[in-house]
Parts: sequence; C-alpha cells; structure tokens
Amino acid sequence: MNNKDLKETLYRVIFGTDTPAGKNFDLFLIFAILVSVSTLMADSVTGYSDMYYEVIRYIEWTLTVLFTIEYAVRIYCSPNPRRYLTSFYGFIDLVSILPSYVSLFVPGANFLLVIRIMRFLRIFRVLKLVRYSTEASTLGRSMYHARRKVLIFFLSVLVMTTIFGSLMYIVEGPENGFSSIPKSIYWTIVTITTVGYGDITPQTPLGQFIAALTMLMGYSILAVPTGIFTAELAQELQRERMNVVCPNCSKLGHDNDADYCRSCGGSLNP
Amino acid sequence: MNNKDLKETLYRVIFGTDTPAGKNFDLFLIFAILVSVSTLMADSVTGYSDMYYEVIRYIEWTLTVLFTIEYAVRIYCSPNPRRYLTSFYGFIDLVSILPSYVSLFVPGANFLLVIRIMRFLRIFRVLKLVRYSTEASTLGRSMYHARRKVLIFFLSVLVMTTIFGSLMYIVEGPENGFSSIPKSIYWTIVTITTVGYGDITPQTPLGQFIAALTMLMGYSILAVPTGIFTAELAQELQRERMNVVCPNCSKLGHDNDADYCRSCGGSLNP
Amino acid sequence: MNNKDLKETLYRVIFGTDTPAGKNFDLFLIFAILVSVSTLMADSVTGYSDMYYEVIRYIEWTLTVLFTIEYAVRIYCSPNPRRYLTSFYGFIDLVSILPSYVSLFVPGANFLLVIRIMRFLRIFRVLKLVRYSTEASTLGRSMYHARRKVLIFFLSVLVMTTIFGSLMYIVEGPENGFSSIPKSIYWTIVTITTVGYGDITPQTPLGQFIAALTMLMGYSILAVPTGIFTAELAQELQRERMNVVCPNCSKLGHDNDADYCRSCGGSLNP
Amino acid sequence: MNNKDLKETLYRVIFGTDTPAGKNFDLFLIFAILVSVSTLMADSVTGYSDMYYEVIRYIEWTLTVLFTIEYAVRIYCSPNPRRYLTSFYGFIDLVSILPSYVSLFVPGANFLLVIRIMRFLRIFRVLKLVRYSTEASTLGRSMYHARRKVLIFFLSVLVMTTIFGSLMYIVEGPENGFSSIPKSIYWTIVTITTVGYGDITPQTPLGQFIAALTMLMGYSILAVPTGIFTAELAQELQRERMNVVCPNCSKLGHDNDADYCRSCGGSLNP
Repeated sequence: MNNKDLKETLYRVIFGTDTPAGKNFDLFLIFAILVSVSTLMADSVTGYSDMYYEVIRYIEWTLTVLFTIEYAVRIYCSPNPRRYLTSFYGFIDLVSILPSYVSLFVPGANFLLVIRIMRFLRIFRVLKLVRYSTEASTLGRSMYHARRKVLIFFLSVLVMTTIFGSLMYIVEGPENGFSSIPKSIYWTIVTITTVGYGDITPQTPLGQFIAALTMLMGYSILAVPTGIFTAELAQELQRERMNVVCPNCSKLGHDNDADYCRSCGGSLNP
Repeated sequence: MNNKDLKETLYRVIFGTDTPAGKNFDLFLIFAILVSVSTLMADSVTGYSDMYYEVIRYIEWTLTVLFTIEYAVRIYCSPNPRRYLTSFYGFIDLVSILPSYVSLFVPGANFLLVIRIMRFLRIFRVLKLVRYSTEASTLGRSMYHARRKVLIFFLSVLVMTTIFGSLMYIVEGPENGFSSIPKSIYWTIVTITTVGYGDITPQTPLGQFIAALTMLMGYSILAVPTGIFTAELAQELQRERMNVVCPNCSKLGHDNDADYCRSCGGSLNP
Repeated sequence: MNNKDLKETLYRVIFGTDTPAGKNFDLFLIFAILVSVSTLMADSVTGYSDMYYEVIRYIEWTLTVLFTIEYAVRIYCSPNPRRYLTSFYGFIDLVSILPSYVSLFVPGANFLLVIRIMRFLRIFRVLKLVRYSTEASTLGRSMYHARRKVLIFFLSVLVMTTIFGSLMYIVEGPENGFSSIPKSIYWTIVTITTVGYGDITPQTPLGQFIAALTMLMGYSILAVPTGIFTAELAQELQRERMNVVCPNCSKLGHDNDADYCRSCGGSLNP
Repeated sequence: MNNKDLKETLYRVIFGTDTPAGKNFDLFLIFAILVSVSTLMADSVTGYSDMYYEVIRYIEWTLTVLFTIEYAVRIYCSPNPRRYLTSFYGFIDLVSILPSYVSLFVPGANFLLVIRIMRFLRIFRVLKLVRYSTEASTLGRSMYHARRKVLIFFLSVLVMTTIFGSLMYIVEGPENGFSSIPKSIYWTIVTITTVGYGDITPQTPLGQFIAALTMLMGYSILAVPTGIFTAELAQELQRERMNVVCPNCSKLGHDNDADYCRSCGGSLNP
C-alpha cells in the first residue's frame, strides 16, 4: 500500500462512517471518550482519587496517548491539515490532550486537568456523522431563523434585570443581603429565570412586592423564547413537508413521515 | 358451562370492557388499587404504621390474596399465557404481589415492600381499555415523532451540564460546596432545570456570573423540548383533522371536534 | 313606578351593563370589592389589625351591609330567584356576607372571616359582562378541547410522582428528611414542577442522581401541557379566523384582526 | 453654515443613523452608556467604591457633562422640542443626568444616584434605529394581539393567588411563617411561578398538600401565556409570509426568509 492509499484508507476510517472499519472506529471512540470522562469525574471525588490513584492514572495516560496518536493521524491523513488544526474540533482535540502533558512540567496545575473534560464535546463529531443529521439541522435552522428575535429578547432581559436589580438594591439594601448592584442583578436573574435558590431573599414588604412583580414578569417572558422557537420550528416542519418531492409523479406537500406518495401511491424512499 | 366457555367468559370480564361485568370488574380493580396504594402510603407514616398496624396488615393481605387470585385467573384464561407473563403488565402484576410473600421468609426486607407501589401502574391498563385511547395515542404519536429531536436535545444538555459543572468545580471549589465534579454536575442540573434548591450556591462573583449564564441558558433551552413537542402535536392535530372522512360524501378536512360534515351536513359519527 | 317596572329596572342596573346606571353600578362594585379585599388583607397584618382596629371594623361592616342589601336585591329582581341562589355566583355572594354575621354569635371563628376573601371571585362576574368575552371564550374553548389530554397528563404525573417518591423514600430514608412516602411525594412534586424549595434535599449520591433524573423528566414533561394548550389554541385561532363572514360578499377566511374584507374591501364591523 | 443648516446636520447625526457621522455617534453613545452603567455598578460594590473613589467620580462627572451637552443639543436641534421633552426617551434622558446635579445640593441622596441606571434604557433607542426593527415589530405585534388574553390570564392569577394565599394563612398560620395574608400571597406567587425560594415552606401535611396543588396548578397555567404568545406569533409569521409581494410577478405567499420568488424566480429584494 503506497503512501497516498494509506492516507485515503486512514481518512475513510477516521473521518468517514460508511465502512465497517469506520463504524468500529467510531464506536471505540465513543467508548474511549465515555471511559475518559468517567475517570475524570471519579478523580474529583475525594475518596476515589486516593483509593484508585494508580488505576485512574493508568487509564488517563493510556487514553491520553491513544488520543495523541489519533490527533497525529488526523493531521497526517487530513486532506487539508491546516484547516483541520484551526477548526473547532481540531482545537477540542488539542485541548483534550495538552493539559496532561503540561501537568508533567507544571505541577499543581489542577485546573488545567479539568479542562480535559472538554473532550466530551468530541462525542458530537462522532454522532453527527452517524445519523440524526436531518433532525439536528431542522433544530439548527429553527434556531438560526430565531437568532435575531432571541437577541432582542436577551438584550431586553439584560436591561430589565439591571434596572430591577438596582431597584432592589435601593429598597432592600446591604443589610438584607443585596450587598451591591451586581449581587442584586444576580438575585434578579435567579428570580426571573424561576430558579430561586433562596440564598438572598427580600425581607421588607416593598421588596417582596417588587420580587413578586419580578417573578410574574419572568414567568410571562419565559413565554417569549419558547414562543419564538416553537413558531419557527412549526414553520420549518411545514416547509420540510412541502419540499418532499415524489420521485414518480413529482407532486409536493407530503407528510414528513409519509412513505408513499399521497397522489400516485409510489414509494417516496425508493 | 364447559372449560372453554369458562375461559372465554373470564377473559371477557377480566381483559375486556364491553360487558357490564367487565366494567364492574374494572371499577372494582381501580378501587382496590387506590385502597392498596393509600394503605402503603399510610404504612410509611411513622405514627400511623404503629397505630393502625393490624388494620394495615389486614387490608394489605386481603388485597394481596385478591391480586394473587386475579393473577392466577389472568394466566388461566389468557389465550397465550406465556405472552402475558412476559408482557409489561404481566411483570407489573407479579411485582405487585411477590414482595408480600417474600417478606414472610426474609424479615426486614422493608425496601421490597415499597416496591409494591409499582402496582399503581396497573391503573393505566384499566384506563387504557376504557376511553381516551384516541387522545393518548395523539400524544403518544407526537412524542414518537419528536423522539430523535428530544434525544439530540438531551445529549446536548448532558454534555453542556458536564462542562459547566466542571467549570464551576474549578471556579468555586470544594470550600463552597462544589466538592466533586459529579456534585457540581448535580448543581448544574438543579440550576439548568430552574429547580434551584439552594443547598449548593455559588459564593464567588465569578461563580455567580457563570451561574447566571447557566440559568439564562437553561431558561432558553427549556424552549427546545416545548417547541419540539408543540410543533409535532400541532402537526398531528392537523393531520387527524384532515383524515376524518365523511361517511356520506367522502369529503376530508373536518375540524377534529366536528359532529357533522362541513360539506353535506351528514353526521360524522353515525 | 309599579312593582314589575321596579324589578326590571333593578335587574337592568344590577345584572346588565348596557345602561349608564348599570356601568356605574359595576364600577362601584369593583371599587367596593377591591376596598373590601384590601381591608381583609390589612386586618391579617399583625401591626395594622391593632392600630386601625376601628377603621377596619367600620369599613368591613359598612361593606357587609351593602353586600347584604345587594344580595337581597339580586334575589328580589332576579327573574328566577331559585336559579340565582343555587348558581355559582349566588353561592359566592352568600359566602361573602355570611361569615361576618356568624362571627357575631360564634366568637373566635377567625378562619370563617378569611373565607370572605372568596368575594374577590365576584370581580369575574362584573368583568365578564363588560368586555373580553370573546377572548375569554377562545381561551376557554381551547382548554375545553384540551381537557382529556390534560387529564391523561395529570394521571401520568400522579403515578410517576408516587413511584419516584417511594423510590426516594427507600434510597434516602427518614434520616435525610424523606420521613414518609407522602412527604417523599411532596418532595417529588416540588422537584418535578421545578419549584425546588430546598427544605428537603437528597444527600446520598444515588439520591442526587435520581433527583437529577426527576428534574430532567419534570423539565421535559413541562412541555406537554404547554404543547397541548398551544396546539389547541393555534387551531382555535385559525378556526375563528375562518369563521368571520364578510357581510357584503360573504367571503370567509379573514385575519382575526381584520377590519375590512380582503376580497371586496367592505367593512367587516358595519 | 447658517443656523438652520446646523440644526439639520445635528439632527441627522444625533437622531439619524444613515450617515457615517450618525453611525459613529451611535457607537460612541452605546460605549458611553455601557461605561457609565459599569461604573455605577462598580460604585455599589463595597471595596471598589473606596478603592477607586476618584476614578469613579471622574468617569461619572465626565459622562454626566457629556450626556448634559447631548440633552441640550437634542432639545436645540429637535424639530419639535416640546414633543421630545415630554416623550419617553426625553424623560429617560433627563433622569440620566438630573440625579448627579441634585446630589451636589442634597447630600446623602444615595438612592437618587442609583436611579441613573435608568440610562441603560437609552440603549434601546440607539439599537432600534440601527437594525432588527422588523424582528422587534413582529414580536411587538404578537404581544399586542395577545394583550387581552394576557390581561384575563393575569387577573385570574391575581384572584387565584389571593384565595390560595388566604387558605394557606388559615391552614399554616403565623407559627409556620405565614404571618399575614399579604405574606401568604407572596408565598403563593413564589410557588405558582415555580421560583420556590424556600424562605417560607409549609410544615403541616394539609399545608403541603395544598402547596402541591398550587405547584401543579402553577405548572399548568404556565402553559397559558406561552400558548397565547406562541399561537399569536405563529399567526403573525404566517401573515408576514403571505404579505411579501414579488416585485416581478406580484405573486404572494413566499417563505419569510426567501430571497427569490417561488413562482418566477425573480429577486424579492431588488
């Protein structure tokens, strides 16, 4: 097998999904990512990190070496290595392995190690290639169409949050936990999103009245992103349905789960 | 009455709903299930379990024996006993009675007794047979159509939750209650679903800023499952309406609560 | 003015809204209800009930006497007094005045006095007569169409809540606040509706895992009532739009906020 | 340049956006508003207000003077100064600068200074002129159409909240934190909007049962504003799509993100 053939074969296995080898590679990668993320989690639990110190170290380094080899092979077999390196997944692949090597030279860089959990994002690459791409793109297109409305919405929430937060800062004041405007804004976001930790709560009747208004407002504006997304998605689904063309009679307007043409009865998925 | 006739009569009473006896049997079963579940609940309340020890025991054993007889008769009269035994409801029926008998031989198996509360699920079998089957299947079909989109959504939530949880673990650390990555992920889920217990809350300004982002994100992505389900349900309702055929003039496209054909005025439910 | 004329005039003023006197009566009633509810609230605040004891007593008795007169007049001028007395609002009108009189004879019946707050419900009668009746009936019809789906939904929530509550009772146990199955069910409802008081929180890792599942489930099933109602309302709005008939050319299918026929340009509200 | 020309040029720069100078002015204004709001926030943080006392004072007074000049110029170049002064943004512009000057004469009027955060609202004026006006007006029209339904909804929530609050006041009473009807109503709003601070929680079994009902009710009625807004928005989007006219063949009914006519293929945005 010459060099070019090797590159192509590797490319088909690592980047592709339509060969048995490519599918097995993907399955192995999912397994490796899940093991790696679980190990990272276990390592952060106080008892486990001491008890299973050696096992965790061993798994982590084995996977780091494997991911490093994979990274190198991806660069090697990519038709455009520069583009791969500067892509989103190229960056994630680097972030998945670099912290382990850095920790060898910079001791105590604990926070760097946690960054490796970003490798969990790689699971999207594997899954995106396999299936559900239509579904994901329907969701994606709906979000794309909704982007401006959502931006306006978030800007309004930001401004409203700032004003209500400042109001509560005046009304309740530092003695009731609203110690600064940023902290009052934090409280307003906690309230408006209906999270409601209860770490800061209004104590004065006027503060409780404004808080109640904030809650009702948050309750109502929750309708806005939901409404925007739902309306866009409903339109997207309708658009999709309309765009399915019968290969037999060329009629449009089929249900998006139809298997046969509603006009001539021919199969829509021959 | 010979053996075959007996089987058929029993089958019609126990599995069917179209005879007066079958309806009465269903009503009695609903009553027995409700009494049994209430007794199980009362038994768990500290005061009651001692005060009404004898009464609770008496009710439980009476119902267990009744359910056992019912289980035996179901096996006896079922046209395909093996299929019944391995079905979902066959399993639930067994789980409803077994723990009581096991507790006779294995004392202290308290957690086994609570498992009997699974018999509450049997209420769906009774209700499914009676009415609302169209409504339930509309909801079911909408969920079925939405399954892939929901899966993608949940996978995204899982990955996002893990990454945000790890981030908070670095930023806040064990001294503020974020004692491990799994616990931080628990906090992230509590926050992103807007539950907000307040048992763990961010204390540092940076942690509160990330928490606010998490809340706003959770607030927005709540729109996604709602949007998916609503859009699918709206389409399902439209599809249903379109599929009602007038038995008189064969026109389609009636409102789904229409009683008369909008074209010829003939009854749609003759 | 003879007796029959008096009855009719009173009926038009008290039950009707199309005369100036009827409108003024409604406005006065809204004012009286708001004053009365505010007084009841102030009476429950510790400081106020002592400070303004006389004022509160005076307002309450004045309004009670007024409402009593109104009640008597309603009975007198109603074309069918029996039907009024047994109607929903007839009952509310009685509940609005009775507790005050009872408290004269039964001292300390504090809880009876609070029942008078039910008179706040009377505000709906006044408002229903004035305007918004189309809007309210659109909402009402959507809810009516959705009733069966909502019932199935609530039954499922009830059963799921019971099973998850019992599971948490086994996993967490009384030592972590899950002291009985009913209390665990209370916790499950607090969690599944994303309220999250934080008065009871899971302490064991397994309990926190199940809690996270409960939250995500609650987060998803929130989509169901929203989806049901939205889809029904969207259909209702479409149906309304289709049913507006142009008085000039008899065309259908106008926008529900259109003022002129989209076909002939004639006014839709002549 | 004579007086009238100066006025017109200033008007185009300050109120308009279609000249490079107008755009630069808007960008500078956004920057100034963001700096000013950030300074106000920093000033409220205990440590910062002392550490950076001079810097904060300096930034604030510079921006106040700048905003004062801008306010004066706006009055000068406005074609109708009276209308500007009495408009919403005219009021906000005044509120943005007045408190600083008042604080010179009235020492300790700390709460007046916080009012300056209202200047954050000015960012909407700048953004409204630039882009997204179609998107914002779609959202706005949907909300306008939904206004009556939302009003009915809020009135119902208000009445329900009052009645449930009074009920909890009777059931739980002052000894469990429900110290007055207004406070119980505050609790009901906290619960019904699923915020759930946990500062007041029901302690009696009956109280917890009513609380669970309140939560489920709140959970369901959350569907109402979402449903109303979504249905109106879906209709608004459909209406918009239908109203786009192809400038070439005059056909209607294009997708609202279409760039070319679906009938003749001509550009829709020539």
